[in-house]
Amino acid sequence: MKFFSDNAAAVHPKVWDALKAADAPDSAYDGDALSARLDAAFSGLFGTDCAALWIPTGTAANCLALAALCPPHGGVVCHREAHIEMDEGGAPGFYTHGAKLMLVDGDAAKVTPESIAALIDPIRDDVHQIQPHAISITQATECGRVYSVGEVAALGDFARERGLGLHMDGARFANAVASLGCPPGDLTAKAGVTALSFGCVKNGGMNAEALVFFDPELARLTRYRRKRAGHLQSKGRFLAAQLLAMIEGDLWLENARAANAAAQEIAAACGERLLHPVEANEIFVALSPAEASALRAQGFDFYDWPAPAGRPGAARLVTAWNSDPREVGALARAIAAL
Amino acid sequence: MKFFSDNAAAVHPKVWDALKAADAPDSAYDGDALSARLDAAFSGLFGTDCAALWIPTGTAANCLALAALCPPHGGVVCHREAHIEMDEGGAPGFYTHGAKLMLVDGDAAKVTPESIAALIDPIRDDVHQIQPHAISITQATECGRVYSVGEVAALGDFARERGLGLHMDGARFANAVASLGCPPGDLTAKAGVTALSFGCVKNGGMNAEALVFFDPELARLTRYRRKRAGHLQSKGRFLAAQLLAMIEGDLWLENARAANAAAQEIAAACGERLLHPVEANEIFVALSPAEASALRAQGFDFYDWPAPAGRPGAARLVTAWNSDPREVGALARAIAAL
Amino acid sequence: MKFFSDNAAAVHPKVWDALKAADAPDSAYDGDALSARLDAAFSGLFGTDCAALWIPTGTAANCLALAALCPPHGGVVCHREAHIEMDEGGAPGFYTHGAKLMLVDGDAAKVTPESIAALIDPIRDDVHQIQPHAISITQATECGRVYSVGEVAALGDFARERGLGLHMDGARFANAVASLGCPPGDLTAKAGVTALSFGCVKNGGMNAEALVFFDPELARLTRYRRKRAGHLQSKGRFLAAQLLAMIEGDLWLENARAANAAAQEIAAACGERLLHPVEANEIFVALSPAEASALRAQGFDFYDWPAPAGRPGAARLVTAWNSDPREVGALARAIAAL
Amino acid sequence: MKFFSDNAAAVHPKVWDALKAADAPDSAYDGDALSARLDAAFSGLFGTDCAALWIPTGTAANCLALAALCPPHGGVVCHREAHIEMDEGGAPGFYTHGAKLMLVDGDAAKVTPESIAALIDPIRDDVHQIQPHAISITQATECGRVYSVGEVAALGDFARERGLGLHMDGARFANAVASLGCPPGDLTAKAGVTALSFGCVKNGGMNAEALVFFDPELARLTRYRRKRAGHLQSKGRFLAAQLLAMIEGDLWLENARAANAAAQEIAAACGERLLHPVEANEIFVALSPAEASALRAQGFDFYDWPAPAGRPGAARLVTAWNSDPREVGALARAIAAL
Repeated sequence: MKFFSDNAAAVHPKVWDALKAADAPDSAYDGDALSARLDAAFSGLFGTDCAALWIPTGTAANCLALAALCPPHGGVVCHREAHIEMDEGGAPGFYTHGAKLMLVDGDAAKVTPESIAALIDPIRDDVHQIQPHAISITQATECGRVYSVGEVAALGDFARERGLGLHMDGARFANAVASLGCPPGDLTAKAGVTALSFGCVKNGGMNAEALVFFDPELARLTRYRRKRAGHLQSKGRFLAAQLLAMIEGDLWLENARAANAAAQEIAAACGERLLHPVEANEIFVALSPAEASALRAQGFDFYDWPAPAGRPGAARLVTAWNSDPREVGALARAIAAL
Repeated sequence: MKFFSDNAAAVHPKVWDALKAADAPDSAYDGDALSARLDAAFSGLFGTDCAALWIPTGTAANCLALAALCPPHGGVVCHREAHIEMDEGGAPGFYTHGAKLMLVDGDAAKVTPESIAALIDPIRDDVHQIQPHAISITQATECGRVYSVGEVAALGDFARERGLGLHMDGARFANAVASLGCPPGDLTAKAGVTALSFGCVKNGGMNAEALVFFDPELARLTRYRRKRAGHLQSKGRFLAAQLLAMIEGDLWLENARAANAAAQEIAAACGERLLHPVEANEIFVALSPAEASALRAQGFDFYDWPAPAGRPGAARLVTAWNSDPREVGALARAIAAL
Repeated sequence: MKFFSDNAAAVHPKVWDALKAADAPDSAYDGDALSARLDAAFSGLFGTDCAALWIPTGTAANCLALAALCPPHGGVVCHREAHIEMDEGGAPGFYTHGAKLMLVDGDAAKVTPESIAALIDPIRDDVHQIQPHAISITQATECGRVYSVGEVAALGDFARERGLGLHMDGARFANAVASLGCPPGDLTAKAGVTALSFGCVKNGGMNAEALVFFDPELARLTRYRRKRAGHLQSKGRFLAAQLLAMIEGDLWLENARAANAAAQEIAAACGERLLHPVEANEIFVALSPAEASALRAQGFDFYDWPAPAGRPGAARLVTAWNSDPREVGALARAIAAL
Repeated sequence: MKFFSDNAAAVHPKVWDALKAADAPDSAYDGDALSARLDAAFSGLFGTDCAALWIPTGTAANCLALAALCPPHGGVVCHREAHIEMDEGGAPGFYTHGAKLMLVDGDAAKVTPESIAALIDPIRDDVHQIQPHAISITQATECGRVYSVGEVAALGDFARERGLGLHMDGARFANAVASLGCPPGDLTAKAGVTALSFGCVKNGGMNAEALVFFDPELARLTRYRRKRAGHLQSKGRFLAAQLLAMIEGDLWLENARAANAAAQEIAAACGERLLHPVEANEIFVALSPAEASALRAQGFDFYDWPAPAGRPGAARLVTAWNSDPREVGALARAIAAL
């Protein structure tokens, strides 16, 4: 019973169907009919013109976005716990040719105009200090929290005022939208987001994410960089197919809602153990080593997590689009019984 | 009737079966059971210990190999028509952090110890000139020619003497082995190849190539670089599955033999039009613009190619594992009838 | 009366003499007779074989050292206030091709085995997290403090145990040695330092620093990187001349002693204002904005500095080899009179 | 009697005077009064607004210019014998983060609109092939030839039409201007040059070149890159002083005229040996190994050079601003007597 991550979950049957349907002769790279539909499909989804590129991984999508928004001599502000800082093996440094991640702290792994201003306002505008060029936020955050539309819009306003780009790492964007119940465009284009890594793999895809630009020039340049990074697959139709299967119906939201609902069921059993409000599909719980062992002995698989002050230990539980209701229920009961 | 490339051909049914079979819960990235089998499977194939990493594209496999063999301040010798020089959008410069491709000429898009020596022997061993660190060859070559075991071994000896690494871009390695009928280890490890990009996508795969190192330390370092380049897919089991489906039976050779046989059938109809002997699955033919139009009018799809001196035009025809025998026959007859 | 930095101080007459003497025909780059003496001269200074390259700036010397010690996918541990982190405009990212500076806190801008271990011990040895490859320390530190021989040796032992390189940014190395009164080799080679940026510019030079490697292979590779970074001046004899003028006699220590003595005179007048013990040639003092204005009105030029908690403001005062005793005395009296 | 290069020649007395005069307290980096005069001084020289940065070496000046004109995924067209291709140890790859030098052939080491068009017109505008973004020419060329005002203007027109930047490597720009007798602005800004590496070191300077931009935004960005590359010297006033000494009078032209005149004297003695017309300060001569030995036995120092077809050997002779008339005469007579 795997709750360690959604990133290795099964591929959704509708995605499989789309993959099979894509196995007909067509042009290579992104010259096929499916890839050609991406811009329109995502423009429809977001209610505004945008350009969308398929990218095989979230790391690559994030870092191509950063490279589009920040020159090698610049910096990108993000939270100290951001995935790009913690878990991407230095990919931001590779893609940006050495730009710097400029770290801020903040509850819920969120950045705010205030926390960013506190970091960047003291920076002299000279060549000795690295100047900020963009902000990157994660939606849902690394704590499983969700930025509200207002919070993103405040960051968008701030970014515009300061001349910064705004990137959203949306590895779990679907879970955030499902949680908020808002139009996806309100959370992105309207709120001032410049580039969005739109997650699909964690949400029932196989190996395709979308990198969505609300500025066509950035998309144009990124097509060169995608090739140069070796991410332009010759059978790109299979990546386009996954994305279209997700967004041309409501599958992306259905899957996210299922994962979120499972998370809520577990969260309800956690009571005081909860380290963060559960707003998407991740549950962070206080758990002593003995309790963790007890759960594992019952067959539950999950990651230990750094324990906050005053707690004997912690764990992260992640649900997925296909979390088995019986397993979810069993986990909820097991936690309640600890 | 598509003869423009094998790089967009259909996925083989056995690969589909393997993909579906891989859709069970397992660990993420390359921690799954299928990925764990790669080293052993490729070691068996090559008859010697080696390490194999799945990589989504040939461009990435090639360039990770170059980065493993050459420091940023060095150079890699390759043929002027090499794919890494002509068609990878600058990926070698990105992955190697700016190393230089050092170009040699030569028939059949082949490099030889002699042509390499002529290029590098005049280079002073000082800091003003870029020093060579590796050789990269393409097997089968960009002209559809195949390096013999002896030719590769001569390059391997030369590389060893000069302290250079030897990379083989084997996007169509299977076609070369099928053509030569030799053990794959004779053409690689035994011949002195350090790193092999083992093609799968053009040969019936979906989006997995293998990067095989005959030096474990290079593989160890490349695992960091693969992650850093955003190529470590979280559902890596689907890439491992494709490779294992290919090589744990004889599928890779069966598919290559089918493509090669189709190429031979077309070649036999080309007569004096042939620009290169056909040794793998690519046919380069002299074709006037009018003749090309005539073929296209009959429904044949292919790329124009730069015409050699004294020829009115040229085209490249590529067969694939699944080239339809009726279409192949039709093309052969159509060419013969020109 | 300039106390803002030693980095723009005058050039020492003996350095001028050496520059003039170097203006005779000789080979270009580092093929001249003066450059050829560097290895021996520095080996004599440090009492052990080493290789020394002239480098025009401290930033370049530091970053060439980091590039020699850390691969692009790795990290270098340094203090949060380190010059390489704060003041080099992203040069470490440029030279290392995107490696990460991994920051630790600590009094006196010093790092310790304990603070480093606290940072790096939690790092999993996997490809998702950046692995440390080197430590960089500043001697004297950014607070004007000096690492003792024992402190450096403890870091050297720790680095060796963990397989890390150890770089010392010695922009004010001379001031540190003058302060400690120890043999320079005890503070570097014997203590486990792998690479030293040996400062000359702040100490009476014009535009030459030395990058000293206690590992000849690192020096060999760095000669390529120095050229590739555009730092191999064709009239390199003028850089070698500056360094030899400094170290073939005791000039480097004489100059540093003069600067340190001036700093002590000012420090003695500062009393409770001192924010750090003065061990080299920098004095950090608490100073209210009004007090700072008062000093400036008397003609003293210096930088404001971030005020520590509970202080109304702060300033940095820096002495140099040629600080005018009358100006130093005047400043000391002016501070005492505040 | 050294004729191997002008790059190690003595420093002109007026430059020494300027250096000494600069040794007064001033602000660090480029905040000093001398650096502040550069833009105006060069704007006067070129008769148009421009921005000028001091850079310690020609390699760095060239490569900062390339980085300003070409993104990492692009290419720069230059002659196959260009200094940036042949002699800079891979610096273009370092500074541009891996962009490609795209090589053309041509007499006199010159590129022309025709030769460039022949190279770039066949490039498909897609992501697989590297797209050209700039042209770099050397004035005087690597053969000692000089582009006429018309030739540069033709390249400028071509560059503008194609949306390419135009960089001039002017390591011997002074010799070219002295040879042509034209206003320097006619050869640069008016002719469509975007960025000029203005050589000073070979012409009597110590270690300062100027990088001149006729587009202020490129200069602005390059100030960050100069710092990031470790080329922002803290005592930058000494670099500014050298440049101002050269151009605020006619010293740069006087020195170049002297070197050119010496070259003419030698050329006149070479007769049929001349491999290229002598238009600046380099003389390329056919010379058998025995003849070369004979000259060396008489005390003349010079580089061998690759021999063109049908010649038994070749040598390059370079004069400098301070070539001794007696040595020049002696060399001329010695060659005539061969």
